[in-house]
Parts: sequence; C-alpha cells; structure tokens
Amino acid sequence: MSRNIIVFDTTLRDGEQVPGAKLNLHQKIEIAQQLKRLQVDIIEAGFPASSLGDFQAVQEIARSVGDTVSITALARAVKGDIDAVYESIKLAQNPLIHIVLGTSNIHVEKKFNRSKDAVMQMGVDAVKYAKTLLPNVQYSTEDASRSDFEYLWGTIEAVVKAGATMINVPDTVGYAVPEEFGHLIYRINDRLKNLNPDVILSVHCHNDLGMATANTLSAIKNGAQKIECTINGLGERAGNASLEEVIMGLKVRENFYGCSTNINTKELVRTSRLVSHLTGLDVQVNKAITGENAFAHSSGIHQDGLLKDKQVYEIMTPEEVGAESMELILTARSGRHAFKNAVEKMGFDTSDAADFEQLFNKFLTLADAKKEVYDHDVFYLVTNHRTLAQGEHQLYELESFQVVSNELHPTATVRLRKGDEILTDSSVGDGPIDALYSVIRTLVGLDVELKDYKINSLSRGKDAVGRVNIRIVYQEKVYTGRAMDTDIIKASAIAFLNGINAILLDATVS
Amino acid sequence: MSRNIIVFDTTLRDGEQVPGAKLNLHQKIEIAQQLKRLQVDIIEAGFPASSLGDFQAVQEIARSVGDTVSITALARAVKGDIDAVYESIKLAQNPLIHIVLGTSNIHVEKKFNRSKDAVMQMGVDAVKYAKTLLPNVQYSTEDASRSDFEYLWGTIEAVVKAGATMINVPDTVGYAVPEEFGHLIYRINDRLKNLNPDVILSVHCHNDLGMATANTLSAIKNGAQKIECTINGLGERAGNASLEEVIMGLKVRENFYGCSTNINTKELVRTSRLVSHLTGLDVQVNKAITGENAFAHSSGIHQDGLLKDKQVYEIMTPEEVGAESMELILTARSGRHAFKNAVEKMGFDTSDAADFEQLFNKFLTLADAKKEVYDHDVFYLVTNHRTLAQGEHQLYELESFQVVSNELHPTATVRLRKGDEILTDSSVGDGPIDALYSVIRTLVGLDVELKDYKINSLSRGKDAVGRVNIRIVYQEKVYTGRAMDTDIIKASAIAFLNGINAILLDATVS
Repeated sequence: MSRNIIVFDTTLRDGEQVPGAKLNLHQKIEIAQQLKRLQVDIIEAGFPASSLGDFQAVQEIARSVGDTVSITALARAVKGDIDAVYESIKLAQNPLIHIVLGTSNIHVEKKFNRSKDAVMQMGVDAVKYAKTLLPNVQYSTEDASRSDFEYLWGTIEAVVKAGATMINVPDTVGYAVPEEFGHLIYRINDRLKNLNPDVILSVHCHNDLGMATANTLSAIKNGAQKIECTINGLGERAGNASLEEVIMGLKVRENFYGCSTNINTKELVRTSRLVSHLTGLDVQVNKAITGENAFAHSSGIHQDGLLKDKQVYEIMTPEEVGAESMELILTARSGRHAFKNAVEKMGFDTSDAADFEQLFNKFLTLADAKKEVYDHDVFYLVTNHRTLAQGEHQLYELESFQVVSNELHPTATVRLRKGDEILTDSSVGDGPIDALYSVIRTLVGLDVELKDYKINSLSRGKDAVGRVNIRIVYQEKVYTGRAMDTDIIKASAIAFLNGINAILLDATVS
Repeated sequence: MSRNIIVFDTTLRDGEQVPGAKLNLHQKIEIAQQLKRLQVDIIEAGFPASSLGDFQAVQEIARSVGDTVSITALARAVKGDIDAVYESIKLAQNPLIHIVLGTSNIHVEKKFNRSKDAVMQMGVDAVKYAKTLLPNVQYSTEDASRSDFEYLWGTIEAVVKAGATMINVPDTVGYAVPEEFGHLIYRINDRLKNLNPDVILSVHCHNDLGMATANTLSAIKNGAQKIECTINGLGERAGNASLEEVIMGLKVRENFYGCSTNINTKELVRTSRLVSHLTGLDVQVNKAITGENAFAHSSGIHQDGLLKDKQVYEIMTPEEVGAESMELILTARSGRHAFKNAVEKMGFDTSDAADFEQLFNKFLTLADAKKEVYDHDVFYLVTNHRTLAQGEHQLYELESFQVVSNELHPTATVRLRKGDEILTDSSVGDGPIDALYSVIRTLVGLDVELKDYKINSLSRGKDAVGRVNIRIVYQEKVYTGRAMDTDIIKASAIAFLNGINAILLDATVS
C-alpha cells in the first residue's frame, strides 16, 4: 500500500517573490486554474497582508478555484496578517491559514531581538487566534534546519497544543543535506505521532545548494506526509523544490519511496510552460523533467542504444509528463469546440461565454490570415485579448509604426492611441529598439528605465514568432511586459506598451 | 583532516553532446584554459574517435593546457577508440585513458547482444590494451546503478586486476536516489579497498530526476574519492551533476562531508558565464550558485531580516563564488596591461603577442567610440576577432544594411563582402528578421533553416547591448551563430552570418 503525499504548491506565493516574476490578477488566476487541473491538493495563493493587489488576487483565487482545491495564504504571526489571510480565503471550500515564524537562534535573536520564550509565545498566540477563525492552521518553523532541536520541538509541541493541524518544517536557506534533513524529519515525526497522530508533518525546501528535490524526497522517506514546492522550482534566490522533479522522483522510484500523489503527471509540461510564459522566466534546456532537452537523448551518442531498446536510456517517457501531446494545429475550419478545447488545454478559463465569442472571432480572423494556427498563436491571442479587456479605455495601444535600422541613424516613428486620443512622434537612437523606446517614452511622458530585454523565437512551421519579454523600472518598482509577433520590432513596441499599461493599472489599483 | 576529492570536469565531452552546444576548436580551448584556472584536476576533452574535429580539439587541449591539469578523453572498449584517445592525449603531462562499457542487464543484453562473460572480457581486453599505451586507465561501468551488484563487482574486480587505476560508477540514466547510490558506493568501496587500496573510486551522476548533485555528495560521504561533473550541469538530456553545486555543497557543509577540493571557488561564476556565452545555453535565473537570482535575497521579503544580519538568509557570500567581482569598466586610458588582464580574467588566452596587439588596437577604437568598455564589449571584441582570424579570406562579412519595419512591407537591404567580392540585394518578409534572413540566404546561396532565435539584453550603463543567439540547420546538422551589438538588427545579421561561416568552415575541415 503506497502512502498518499499531500502536494502544496507555492508558485503563486514563494515563486512570485522572484524579481521580475510579478503576475497580474488574470495571470494568477490562469495559473491557479492550471494547478487545479494538475490536481495539486493545496494552493498557496499569496501573502495578502503585503498589498491590496495581493489580497484581491488571493480572494479571487479562493472564489474561482477554491471549490475542490484547498486554498491557503501566508501570514506572519501577527493578528493583522492572520485577519488578511482569513478575509481573503474564507470563500474557499477548504481554507487553511498558514502562519510562519522563525525558530533558529539566528532568526530569533537577530531578526526579532526577543527571548526564545517570547517568540514561542507569539507563535502560540497566533495559532490560538487563527483557530478562532478557521479549523485548519499550518504553522511553519522558519529556518528549522538550523534550529536547536529541543527549542524547535518545544515550539512544535506548543503550537500543536494550541491547535495547529499541520506543522511545516522549512529548510529556509537551503542549508540541509538529505541524510541530515531526513534524520530531522524522522525525529520530529517520531515525537509528533505520540503527541497527536492527526497532525500532518510537512516540509518546504530551498535549492541554494542544488538539493531541494533530494531533501524533500528524503523527508518523505522519513515520514513527511506533505510537501511544499513550486513549478519550475521558482522562488527566492535559487528557488524551491521543483514540483515536477519531486513528483516524478516519487513516481519513477515508487519501488523505493512507496508513496503516491494525486498529481496528473500528464499536465506537468503544460503547467511548466504556462508558468514560464506568464512569468517570463525561461526554463533551462537541461532542466530535469521540463527542460527542452530533458527527453532529447535520441540526438546524442545514445542513439544507437535507444534504437535497440528504449529502456537503455529512458527511465520515463515524454508522454508521462505530457511533453509529447503539447502541440495543436488549428485551422479556420477547426470550429468553436476545437478552439475552446485548445484554449482550455493551455490552461485558460473559457467560462465567460460572451468573452469567449469575442476570442473566437479573433481566432477566425487570425486563422484566415495564417492558415495554420499553433499553440503559441492561441496563447498570444488569449493573453493579448485579456490584457486589453482589463481596462481598454485608459490604456495605450499601438496604432502604427515604422522603424528604419541602418548604421547611420536608426529611426522610429510611432502612432499610439489612448482612448480617443492619437499621439504621433519620431526619434533616433543607438539602434532600432533604443529609437523605438525613446519615442514611446516621450509619447507617454513617463520616465521608465529598461532593465531587461529578451526575445525568444517560437518557431513552428514557416512563420517564426518572436516572444519579447521586458522588465522596466518606474519609481523603483519593476514591471514586466510581454508580446509576440512575427515582427520582433512590433512585438517589442507592444511589450513596452504592455509594461507601461501595467504601470498605469498599478497606479489605478493602489 | 579533510579528505581531498579529485574533480574531473566533462563539460567538453558530456556537456558538449547537448544539441546546439557544439563548440569550435578555439572555444574548446578557451573553456579548457578557464577550467585550468578553476583548478579542476582532470579535464575530459572529448571523444576523439567520433570525428576528426573532436580528435584535433583533444590534441590541441592536451598540448596547450595539459601541463598542470590531467587530460583524458573517452573511448568505447575497442582498440580503434583507445588508439584515438592515446594519440590525442599523449602530449599531456599526465594523460589518462577513459574506457566506458555497460554493466546493466539492459545494456549488456539489449545494446550488445552478447553474453555477460563476453562483455566483461571485452572490458578486460580493452584495459589490458590501454595499459600497454599509458599507466593511467579509468574504467566506467556504464549504467552501474541499474546493474546486478555481483556482476558489477565481478567486472570491477576483473578490470582492476587487468590494471585499471580508476573505477568510475555512473548513474547513466539518472535513476539513483542518494540513500541507494550512497549504499552502492559504500559496498563497492569496501571491497575495492581490500582488493587494491590504490585504485581510485569515482562517480558520474545524471540529473533526470533532479538528484545528480545529492547523489554525487552522497557518494562522497560513502567513500568516493573522485567526482565527474560539468559546468552549469550541461550534458545529455537533463545533464550531469553541476560542478558549482557539488563544490559549494562540500564547502558550505564541510562540517558534514569533511572533504575539500582544489577548486578556486572564486572562478565559479566566471566559468559558468564563459560556458554559457560560448555554448549559447543560458542558465536559469534561479539556478543554484550561478543563476542571476542565486544571491538576490535582498530584493524579496527577506530584506528586513537581511538588513539585521546577513546570516539570517545567507549561507555563502557572492564573493566566495566570484559573483561580485565580475564587472570591469575600461576606458581608452586603461592601457595595454589592464586590457590584457580583462581579457584573461574572462577566460581568454593572450599568449600570442601579435594577435593580442591586433586585439588591443580594436579595443582602442572601441574605447574611443564608447568611452566606457564593459565586460560584454570585451567578450564581443575577442570572440569576433577570433572568429574572423580563423580564415577571413573565405568568410562573409557584413558591409552595410538597411531594414525597414512597418506593418505593410518589412524590407531588408544587405551588402555583404566575401574576400574581394561584394554582394547586394533586398527582400521583403513577414517581419524585419524574416526579410533580413531571406536576403542573406539568397546572397550566400545556401538553403539554411532557422531553428531558434534568441536575444538577451546585456544592459550596463546607458547603452544596452543585445546578444543574439541563433541555431540554424544545414543538411541536417545544427550550427550556432552569436553576435552582440547595440542594434539588434545588426547583431541578428552578424549572428546569421557567423552561423553561415560556421557551415563553410565545417565544410573546409571535414
């Protein structure tokens, strides 16, 4: 009998903290919906006390996705944070309050400057307060792997007695090694089972030394019942344990771990791509499970062995993780149903019928022009449509442009629309992008600094599409803009405008 | 007393097998020189029997770098391969022959279709033959982690008796988990120490389940004396154990592992960047140790804790891995010595005085134009110079260009030089890059398919520079082209021409 392991995804909380990975409300919901399709058990949707935007996103995810998936959000051990979590998740069917507080000497002494007893009491009070709001409360003993064991256990004992239903043991700084971390979990589990066998023991590993996956699996082997992880291993610094690696480790090595999860592994690659598209953070080609080359053995010197028997070099198939069934090719005759299917398969919601009709009409126009419509086209169509729908009257749109590149005077001429207003100007620059962004900067009148600029081709068939990702800084905040087009200059202009529109939307919200 | 672990780098063999990572002779030598500066103990320089180009590269590395570093290359267990290895590495001070042969049932039965005894005899014969050429021979028991233990041990015993001086135990398909792999190494080490205590036990781990680093460290903990790894974890499929992760694991957790290496960790980030630049394969932002965000805690919610004490969230410093001391800013007045220093610090060789003078003159021209010269400028200068130096009379150069982007008719006009010949034409396309590449394709008369196109900004100071990486396919072979410029259209043209020149050079060599 294999033990079932509870999968807690924190892509939208720990993952979204990555510089440049900031997501808007629509993007967060798209990811939450895909996580539900992936069949994670718990989604950590954000840190609601950090900003109004984060609060609203958690609330919307709890409302729209929290029917079958448990929803949680992070609180420090203070009343205000716990209230914000409760208010934002209470509409979910199965809400969970997550409280975090440090237990290591370094955290207790340096960060809080209080006595160990006083810090422990903060935790106990926080749990007691949370229990007045909801039955399910998780307590995270931050920096547990560097904590004094007896103080760590004392804290766990106290918060369990106060009512915590899940204890999460984080390796916050990625310092642990599998042998040691497994042993720590073994000791905690041993005592916890005696104290209260219903409390769930969880782990949360960081990847600073490249061992988050192995530490997570070692914890499972030693009794952990729940794991926290993120898609593509996103998260602070070197990130968290990669969900896809941990899940496939359990599956491929079930003979060793004796555990299973509810995850639908065929959704792994799709989820990875959605998160990568929406955050603009690419996955390395040699990333385990979801990298472009993860299954590319057939092209190396292993080819000879592979032709003889797949098992020679293959411990899992691309089909198991959904790496093969990704591509859809649609035409104008594919029809409404096939298009809807394609949109949903990419992780987008289609429940708003009027909105879907608009989208379908845009699809027909594109399909007439292009004949073959690929995944990336559908993705572009949907994201573009949704961005405009957010508040089209107040945002900038590209009306037309002309950019001349040569070694003398790269020049850009741009015409923008904002509501009924039309703006036109031109500028020279060091190169076409410099010229283009200079004129747009002048037209919108915002002092925006370009921090990062990337283009990736998404080439299928004849017409390669360029996906542009930019990061811009305005008043010390980082915003991202993305766009795709067969013309990289046009995509660059739209990505920059999307970034500027994000600034405007941000100013409206906060 | 800490045990010294021997570090064997296979970036130039297993790493270079990655689709699209193909390096030319100059690039391989640059990487080998940087690996020497990093102080790896052994460089695996290639697989000389695979092609004449690979043979020549190994030979050149053995000649130019093999004075203080041991040089090895791969051979299958056949005389021809072993001869090729011997001939290519014999000029090194400390050459090592590396023989690989499978030991798992799947490999023996499916790949070789011979009896287990016959396969073992092949290995023994290969080692005996290699020993007639050189004293140091490493034997790799391919797919060891899926092999029957007694057969695996039987093979090890037989090849050690035949004279093998190093036994390498690979987890070829990335199937192992740390507990199991550590136990396997423990058992082998136990018997090997009785059989012949002078034989060195080594491991080679793949990352298919994300555990290559943890498996390698577990093997060290259980007695392995030597590890095989690659920079950035490059290699077949999900790659090999990352050198930087294993090394920093040993260093940060010396209290647990009790081991040290000769690696100069301050060269880690520089080596990672050089390999990433030259292969065109980017490192994920959240990659442990060398990712852009690996030390970016200060920008997250950890900021408050960090301000109070660095130890709260930092287990190693950016300085330890050389992440802080990267950037150089040069001016026209920096002088020959500072420029030479900068070129060498980036990992390039400057021993050819005449060549260096040419380079320095190019630097002065650039410094006059730009005032401030950054790392990426130096990198661009050197790589461009070296590519041209390879055979300038027969290669294409960009004379001038003009590209017009708009929504009607994106048009490119290009003038190329090839020796004394001047070629000019123009073309329209779906976008500026399509137009540009169409006209170049027509001018050079080669049917080249664009497979992949990427741009990254390298922005420092006022002028952001775009680095273009492309992959093109010609007669079923993949070639890469790279270029940098403040004008991404110009960089795109030069990258494409570099790819085309690589095709022409390839045709000359083979």
